[in-house]
Amino acid sequence: MSVRRIPLRGAVPLAHHFLRERVGEGDRVVDATCGNGQDTLLLAQLVGPSGKVWAFDLQESAIAATRELLEREGVAGRVELLQSGHEGIADHVAGPLQAAVFNLGYLPGGDPSLVTRPESTVAALQQALDLLLPGGILTIAVYTGHPGGDEEARAVEAWCSALPPKKFNVWRHRQLNRPEYAPYLVMVEAN
Amino acid sequence: MSVRRIPLRGAVPLAHHFLRERVGEGDRVVDATCGNGQDTLLLAQLVGPSGKVWAFDLQESAIAATRELLEREGVAGRVELLQSGHEGIADHVAGPLQAAVFNLGYLPGGDPSLVTRPESTVAALQQALDLLLPGGILTIAVYTGHPGGDEEARAVEAWCSALPPKKFNVWRHRQLNRPEYAPYLVMVEAN
Repeated sequence: MSVRRIPLRGAVPLAHHFLRERVGEGDRVVDATCGNGQDTLLLAQLVGPSGKVWAFDLQESAIAATRELLEREGVAGRVELLQSGHEGIADHVAGPLQAAVFNLGYLPGGDPSLVTRPESTVAALQQALDLLLPGGILTIAVYTGHPGGDEEARAVEAWCSALPPKKFNVWRHRQLNRPEYAPYLVMVEAN
Repeated sequence: MSVRRIPLRGAVPLAHHFLRERVGEGDRVVDATCGNGQDTLLLAQLVGPSGKVWAFDLQESAIAATRELLEREGVAGRVELLQSGHEGIADHVAGPLQAAVFNLGYLPGGDPSLVTRPESTVAALQQALDLLLPGGILTIAVYTGHPGGDEEARAVEAWCSALPPKKFNVWRHRQLNRPEYAPYLVMVEAN
């Protein structure tokens, strides 16, 4: 019988499903918005001691929470934490990358006026894409429930939709039996 | 470094990605529309000699092509071929099932007037769902390029959208950088 898998119960579990399949020992990856550090921790575990994670967040509280989590789990040594907007990827990251993880919107439990913005999000996505290896992925969890969320989602989808289909497979994963405003996942895979 | 994976270049490769992850030795599965037999072959390989595949198709030519492929690959013994509409699942299949695979529309290279129909498709989906194990999946490749295709897609999505979110995770996977009429994948996972 099959091994029981983690249920694909939302955009973040689905992103983790693809990351677990695509990221392995020694890989270089980016967490563009580390937030509470859960994605950073998963990435650090997947790349192992020979890999490298660059994790960005504008907010000092997010960097501090992520550092604490990584130290508690004993994986802080393979993660470079950068208090910077995600559009700092090109300045700080030495690719090539196997994956880059984006969570748009605002930090859960943080200041809801501090949200990711369409221009910097699209700039950051392009920077990550430029560093992506063949077979590498960008995962983008999109939230539309806050002011400006719809506008950002439209900007991200416009950017993705223009990517050449021979070079990139671009998927939008939505849950049909959830409300329209439920978070969804966009994924870009480099061929 | 990560193992290089098969690119997720369309609805069928994405369905195969999820099937490879969810179906294993000894499982019972259904191919609701065997067509040229490619999905049936994958399922037969995944379930191994101790598993069982029921494969349906209304058209004799599809059953014959699938039988030939399975015999050539040495896996015919674990597959029961049924020349019947996919709404025959409840009459022929002894569950519980780990997966059921649907390809809507018409047989490539076959008679384009012989298409799956909304009523029988939804009936077949419900029959397969009733047999699905926790962690099991339905994959539904949806084609809208032929007459009646849009209507069938709407019926499938209406059925899926009404499934209770505590029991089922229902995903629609579309490619953003392909034309609107490109085939897409709907997946139902039982919790």
